Amino acid sequence: MSPRVVRTVAGARRLRREAREAGRRVAFVPTMGALHEGHLALVRRARALGDEVWVSIFVNPTQFGPGEDYDRYPRDLEGDTRLLEREGVATVFAPAEREMYPEPPAVTVGFGGLEDVLCGASRPGHFAGVGLVVLKLFHIVEPDVAVFGQKDAQQAVLIRRLVADLDLPVRIEVAPTVREGDGLAMSSRNRYLGPEERAAAPALYRALQAGRRAVASGETGPAAVEAAMRAVLAAEPRLGVEYAACVDPRSLQPPAGIAGPVLLAVAARLGGARLIDNVLASPDGVHPETLSDLDRAGGFR
Amino acid sequence: MSPRVVRTVAGARRLRREAREAGRRVAFVPTMGALHEGHLALVRRARALGDEVWVSIFVNPTQFGPGEDYDRYPRDLEGDTRLLEREGVATVFAPAEREMYPEPPAVTVGFGGLEDVLCGASRPGHFAGVGLVVLKLFHIVEPDVAVFGQKDAQQAVLIRRLVADLDLPVRIEVAPTVREGDGLAMSSRNRYLGPEERAAAPALYRALQAGRRAVASGETGPAAVEAAMRAVLAAEPRLGVEYAACVDPRSLQPPAGIAGPVLLAVAARLGGARLIDNVLASPDGVHPETLSDLDRAGGFR
Repeated sequence: MSPRVVRTVAGARRLRREAREAGRRVAFVPTMGALHEGHLALVRRARALGDEVWVSIFVNPTQFGPGEDYDRYPRDLEGDTRLLEREGVATVFAPAEREMYPEPPAVTVGFGGLEDVLCGASRPGHFAGVGLVVLKLFHIVEPDVAVFGQKDAQQAVLIRRLVADLDLPVRIEVAPTVREGDGLAMSSRNRYLGPEERAAAPALYRALQAGRRAVASGETGPAAVEAAMRAVLAAEPRLGVEYAACVDPRSLQPPAGIAGPVLLAVAARLGGARLIDNVLASPDGVHPETLSDLDRAGGFR
Repeated sequence: MSPRVVRTVAGARRLRREAREAGRRVAFVPTMGALHEGHLALVRRARALGDEVWVSIFVNPTQFGPGEDYDRYPRDLEGDTRLLEREGVATVFAPAEREMYPEPPAVTVGFGGLEDVLCGASRPGHFAGVGLVVLKLFHIVEPDVAVFGQKDAQQAVLIRRLVADLDLPVRIEVAPTVREGDGLAMSSRNRYLGPEERAAAPALYRALQAGRRAVASGETGPAAVEAAMRAVLAAEPRLGVEYAACVDPRSLQPPAGIAGPVLLAVAARLGGARLIDNVLASPDGVHPETLSDLDRAGGFR
């Protein structure tokens, strides 16, 4: 059965009321469309957690900076909806920009500095825009559970913080990164890569693996782990490395010494694309896949 | 029947689920306790709008600045609960500070400058704290409708903006200010006034009435209206006037010329208290009582 595609806030609220009255738990996957296997893995995780899956498709202008790829970001609602149909998605919420922002919003969301490090350092305003749109989507969809990808680790950390600090009545689940055969993390932006760039891209994941090996072999200094990652990235001259970081998965600051799980994260420009990737690394060599796995292992919060 | 008093977020969520399953609409009045007739008027308005009334009582530390009256703010949960019992309130949510803030929040809420004028100019951080706690309370109580007082006009403007910009699924109703016989707006802080200060306090309302007369008599310059209000306040030497403002009720900025309803607002220190008051004023002399009345008259938003 084809998903119901709703374009308005009022329409989404109406469908949500029906689901509630039928006692159906809604699991929600917010996306910007241009769906790939990574998104579909989030949808499958959502299907396991709720009675019906809702997916939003909205290229949110407030999270793009000037000079970023808002205009050329790939949009294909029909193709996306076909993919979601195969996954048994109940509802696709695909509002127009005017529906989400009928006037410029006055309200802003901050994260006490968590939004200024890692990707936030080179994308000022990005996470404020993410926080705003996620709050709006949560208030419209009112999901019981929402699934985010580990791929966007900083986003996941911030959303979890948003939910905790604001007492949002939603459970957040972070699902594993899906990778190509050579390790490249799936991303809608991979389609910006030319063939030679595509061949160079797996260096990000190789760098993260080098970082994991350093942590598992007993390295306790975050700077040394970062150096191990940078050495791998430096071997690939096409990469314009933005950061290679070893940080606490909660504060996003480098730990004084590595005594438990850390987040290893990298970002680099490659041709016309900006690529990011990350893994969690544990000194005991049992590396959690996601922030949610870390929770369940009792290692976090 | 005595209201159910819940102290925990989990307890409130449980009762909220019961109300939802019973198909009962919840009307919510957030307060800091120290209840007076003004609060009870909000409760009565709530009773007319929902099937059951919930009142929160929480002296929110994040909205008090250093040197403000957080420590001496009057607290009397038992007396407050007795008053609410007479009003048929279903649920009192009275969390401890640790329940609301188990750790210092990282997330912050801004209002694009609306929070920096009027009361915000002398109370930096106040409205950020209000925004944070109201979002938390809305996410915990999930009210169908929430009632705020016109007395705190700037707060009402900001909360309405919060709801609009974040698509919060709650209707906001603004209820009229309740006044003593001599015009003084009811406030928990009136109890800080000594007898002579209490005698001086109605000058605030007299100033607002002078402002209304100026607007209704055709004055189109906000500065002239402000001068009319200031003249009344100046006659009362005990008052330390903080502001006397004539502003657009949406932007909170002085209008270029008064062509429709405006918000007249005053703030002054009087002994150990800081008092505020406001009215709406319309050039046609038909003054709306509240921001909600203004909506219904089609003059706003």
